[in-house]
Order: sequence, then structure tokens, then C-alpha cells
Amino acid sequence: MIRKPRLFTPGPTPLLPEAQAALSAPALHHRTADFRKVLDGVRENLKYFYGTANDVIFFTSSGTGAMEAAVSNLFSPGDRVIVATAGKFGERWEQLAQAFGLHVEKVAYPYGRTIPVSAVQEALERSSDIRGIFFQATETSTGVRNDTEGIARLRKIRPDALLIVDAITGLGTSNLDIDGWELDVVIGGSQKALMIPPGLSFASVSERAWERMKTAKLPRYYFDLLKERESAKKHDTAYTPATSLLVGLAAALDHVRGLGRENLIRNAQVLADCTRHGVQALGLKLFAEVPADALTAVSAPDGISSSDIEKRMRDDFGAVVANGQGTMKGKIFRIAHLGYYDFTDMVGVIAALEMVLKGLGHSCKLGDGVSAAQARYLELTASAGSPSARQ
Amino acid sequence: MIRKPRLFTPGPTPLLPEAQAALSAPALHHRTADFRKVLDGVRENLKYFYGTANDVIFFTSSGTGAMEAAVSNLFSPGDRVIVATAGKFGERWEQLAQAFGLHVEKVAYPYGRTIPVSAVQEALERSSDIRGIFFQATETSTGVRNDTEGIARLRKIRPDALLIVDAITGLGTSNLDIDGWELDVVIGGSQKALMIPPGLSFASVSERAWERMKTAKLPRYYFDLLKERESAKKHDTAYTPATSLLVGLAAALDHVRGLGRENLIRNAQVLADCTRHGVQALGLKLFAEVPADALTAVSAPDGISSSDIEKRMRDDFGAVVANGQGTMKGKIFRIAHLGYYDFTDMVGVIAALEMVLKGLGHSCKLGDGVSAAQARYLELTASAGSPSARQ
Repeated sequence: MIRKPRLFTPGPTPLLPEAQAALSAPALHHRTADFRKVLDGVRENLKYFYGTANDVIFFTSSGTGAMEAAVSNLFSPGDRVIVATAGKFGERWEQLAQAFGLHVEKVAYPYGRTIPVSAVQEALERSSDIRGIFFQATETSTGVRNDTEGIARLRKIRPDALLIVDAITGLGTSNLDIDGWELDVVIGGSQKALMIPPGLSFASVSERAWERMKTAKLPRYYFDLLKERESAKKHDTAYTPATSLLVGLAAALDHVRGLGRENLIRNAQVLADCTRHGVQALGLKLFAEVPADALTAVSAPDGISSSDIEKRMRDDFGAVVANGQGTMKGKIFRIAHLGYYDFTDMVGVIAALEMVLKGLGHSCKLGDGVSAAQARYLELTASAGSPSARQ
Repeated sequence: MIRKPRLFTPGPTPLLPEAQAALSAPALHHRTADFRKVLDGVRENLKYFYGTANDVIFFTSSGTGAMEAAVSNLFSPGDRVIVATAGKFGERWEQLAQAFGLHVEKVAYPYGRTIPVSAVQEALERSSDIRGIFFQATETSTGVRNDTEGIARLRKIRPDALLIVDAITGLGTSNLDIDGWELDVVIGGSQKALMIPPGLSFASVSERAWERMKTAKLPRYYFDLLKERESAKKHDTAYTPATSLLVGLAAALDHVRGLGRENLIRNAQVLADCTRHGVQALGLKLFAEVPADALTAVSAPDGISSSDIEKRMRDDFGAVVANGQGTMKGKIFRIAHLGYYDFTDMVGVIAALEMVLKGLGHSCKLGDGVSAAQARYLELTASAGSPSARQ
């Protein structure tokens, strides 16, 4: 049987066809007027995608590069920071802060839990000299949504603490009020809701963060936010950028403009909600205490390894879901909803899951997951009339 | 909501990604060594795709061009031929034969019926001077499969009658034993099971047909089979060919070689079979007396127009199915299975159909069509062990 390879992983995600076409266009030289127009457009539209008036700086790197920039540009050796973590990407904040010699106050919770705002509050109240709070808007390794707004409100306790948010899978899948909640640095990546391949990272930077940079003494060179801001004023980049990815990003951002960022977010929310109904109708349990809409993390049923589920989904149906990472491998699998996904993708992955679970001996009835997802889809789209009336 | 446009039409069909990439490669000049290699490979692989030792000639035209070639290259004014028709494409044979001044003995049956072999036999027995029999292996307008082997066996009654088969949707979806059944001309098109855009037509030509050409007096110039055969010997074409389509075709044929033509056919057969189970579980009736595996034609339920079904499928779910053509408009809709289709596509289109039918007031239960298709898929793929064991 033909099996089309389909990515249901929380990055990389399926490529937007318009972006794919742009990616394969003849290369532009990066010091030309044509390319400068691309840069200006991307910078303007990234602010729209983020929903912020802050500058959004990009780097040619994976998302971790922009995470490093948030550490190296804003702090000085020995600065005390809070890292709130309940997953693999929270641990990355910890490793980064430690690599740069910061003093880390760790607020750690088990995988699958959401970070209690009260726990961050206690850590803030314990130390008067906290200079930053690092956390994930959505923890991609566990499918958990953290309470970004709640943590942001803690700013009043320590006005000097910068709010640094990894929203690599949170952007384009959740409503982050960056300006209203005064988030100082928000990190993004290209291979998520933006529907292009990996290779570009993003960081929105608040005025408070630019101010902090003046006194931050950690070493930085490639990931220098200020240098990139100066280059942007000259319609340029500090170093050779990934030109084809930027041309693809320009096409993707144009698409997001046309669709509306709120509709991109709602798309993920509806498909996530329907997927949760679908997998629960099959007798499966959600892994996340508070599920994110970027992806659904599902616990493998007793006696079945998620590695087998992941393998059969891929081998039998071409559906690439993500296994758990690290200690979660074999225990959970993850289905993404971010970016270029639609109803048919969702129904297809649930139908394939039903077949695979049945094959692995899990007791479930074919069609039960699909019909639960369909029914929920009708509910969620009914408020605006028939689905056809909806955007 | 995001709605990916998906073609479920019986041509054009979804493009094979490898072919799509080849299509967008820089243009080759058609009188170069590189392009001659492409031509030679395409000609060899077309024979594999057809499953014949006969030459397969191609034209830069839609499928109708190769149909015209079958008329204009093989007959003389006033020749008596049988046209067996029960659909729009059967009528095209009739129009073509009449446009070229042939004397048509029509064997006509209502839309939805398969042509009875006995009816063709009676027509053959009525006239001793029949020079050709025209029919469809699968009638795309009604989703009907005709008995190509049965009609071909009638050759013994009138050995002088050439067997001319429109297999535009039959190739790659059904087992046509071109050499065993001694089919003289078999017509194909690029935008069907070959997974590339429209613009190329094909005709396999038997020795008997080449022989007939020597005395055939109808006028032809662009669609000259013999001229193209002579050009092929020189690794060339008579006229400027659609170079990008041929490069795409080369990639598609390579893919078919890798997959195996029998597996391409089986893919369509399994998905067609599952789809038939799915739509019948929703209380719908198949339109075709003997359904083809290229596509499933479904009668709209009482009181519901297939035009509404087609529109809602497209508007609400991005799923492009085909309405009925001509007098069948509003009465039937058609879901294709030919070419680059897989399980997820099939499940997606059935799930979307369930939602649309429910919205239009048809009484059916969400998930019933999907689960019937899933169960049938398990049955059909179980004989070779788990689906994963299957190619």
C-alpha cells in the first residue's frame, strides 16, 4: 500500500506549500536590495505573528540559539535566576544558565505536571535578588501548558526579574499577550507553527530587556541581540543569514497574515481539543496535567510500549508521531497540532491509531476515537453556524 | 480552520512529491543528449506501466488527443465501427468516430450500467464488416468497470475488428492484460494513476494496428502514431514535447518501478473496496452496476443534491470530490482512488462525508463509515499478516 509520510511531530511540522515553493526559488544574494526587502517584510510580519510591538530578532540557528541569546545578553556572571522546569526543555534552561555561570534557583516538578504559580512565587519571595525567571509557555516534551499569565503577574514581587519564556511551540498555538503581560523575551523557532524547516530562531525583546543589556556582562558574539538590532536598522543582518529559509519564512508569514494569527491559533486549539476527545474515547489517558494545544501527549496503555505504537504508526500508515523523550520514551507518544494541520490529518491519525492499538491488543472499537473527535468538531464549530460559515 | 486542498477527483489526481520536484527543475532543451535520455527512459518505463511489449506512443495533449489518434490513424472514411457506450466518455468515442466520417454502430446502455458483452457480440454478428470496437475499460463518468477481457474475446468473431480501449483511468487501477487479450490500442493520460499534471496522452499500439495504419486513409498530422514511432527510433519526438511534464513523468515512472505496478493497482483496489464498504455503511448506494477501482461513484441520498455534497466537502473540509457530469450532475458524486492516495486520505474523505451528510439532514452515525472502511482494510491486508508485513 502507498503510505504518504505525514509528520505529526511537534516540530518539524508539515511545510506550507507556498513556503515550500519559495524555499526552492533561485538563491538571492543577502547583500542586495531584493533581499533587504525580504528582511524588512519578515521583521514586520514576525511582530504580527508574535502579536507584539517589541522588536523580534532572528538568528540563523535552532531554537536553542535564541534561548542562549536570552541568557548571554541579559545577565552577568553569578546572577541569581529562577528556572521553573517540569520537562526536557525546562532542563535546557537550567543547563544554559549553568553553562554561563548563573546561580540557578530551580523550581522543579515531575514530567507531566504544570508548574504551580505558587511555587514560583515562593522561590521569588525566598530571594530578594532574582534577576530573571525562565520557563516554558508550553513544555514540548510533556505536552503541558504552563500558566504564562499567572507567572508573569509575579513581576510585581521582584520588578527586577526579567520574564524569559520559551514559546517555541507556544507561539501560533496559544494566546500569549506579550505586551499586556510584559514578557521580556519570548523565544520562537521556524519549524513549528510557522510551517517551514528548522534553521531560524526568534526572540522578541522588551524595552526593559534592551535596557538590561547595557549592563549585562556575559560574553556573546554570534547571538548578540543588540548587534542584530543595529543591523536591522540598516535592513541587514550581522552575519550571513539562511537566505532560502528567510524567503520561505516570508511566504509563511504572508500566509499567516492572510489567515489571521487568531485563526492559526484557533485551528490548533480546535484540533487539539478534538484529538483529546478522540484518544480518550479509545480508553487512553492524557499525560499532561494541563494539556497544551500545540500537541497532545498520550500515555501508552498498560502493557503496550509507546515505542511500538510510534513504530507501527510510521511503518503501517506513514504517520510519524513522536515517542516520549528521555525517561518518557516508551511511556508516552505525542501528536502535534501546530502549523499546517487540518481536520483530515487529525481524523487520519486517530483512525491509524485505532488500527495500531487494536493490533497491539488494546481493547477498543474501530471508529470510536474518530466519531468522538468528529462530534467534538461539530460542537466547536457549531457556534458560528455550520462549519462552512466558519473561517 | 485550515483546510488543505485535497483532490479526490478522478483526474487530476494528487501529484507525487518526487514528480513535483522534477517538474520544477530547470528546463531542459528538447534537442539535447540529456533530454534524449529522459525520452528513452520514459518510453521504456511506459511499457512497464502498461504491462505490454507493444510500443507506447505519447503525445503532448490531453487524453482526448490520443483517442483521436486511435481513430485517425487506423481507419478510412466510411469504415464501420462499434462504439459501446454507457457514459460521457463512451459518447466521446462516438463523437470522434463521427467527426472523422466513420459509420458508427452504437451499443448504448444507460449511465451506471456496465456494457453487456453479449450486446457487443450481437452487434458484431449483425455486421460482417466491423473494422473496430471502441469502449472504456473504466467509464470515468459513472465509475463503471467494463469487461475488457470479455469484449476482447469477441475478436474471434471478426478478426479484422481492432480493439481500441480507453483506459485513461483503467491503467494503474486494474489488471489489463494488453498482450494476452490482444488489445490493439490502449489509451492513457498523465493526470491519473501516473500522478502528474494533465498534458500528456499515451497509446499502446499492437502489431496489428501498425499493419492497419499502412492502409488507413483518414487525415492526420499532429497525432501521427507512425511519425512518432519513427522519431522514437531517433530518441526524439516529431514536435516540441512538454519537456517539464516528461521530466515529471520520468520521476513518476521511476516511482512506479520502485513500488511495482501490481502494488500501485492493488493500492487502488484496496482503497476502492474499503471506500465502498464505508459509504454503504452510511446508507448510501453505489451508482455503478459493476464498480471500477479507479473511482467510486455514489448516488446522492433522496432529497439531497450531490452538488450540495460536493460544495460542502470542498468548502468545509477542502476535500474536492467530483460531482456527476452532464445529466448526472446533482445525482451522483465520485471519489477517486487512483494514483497517490493512501489510507489517511480515504479515512479523511469518508469522515468529511459523514459530517457533510449529517449537516444536510441525512440520517447516519458519525464514525460508521470510517469504521466500516477500517474493518475492511484490516480484512484485506490481514492475509499477509499485519499491515506492517505488507508492501
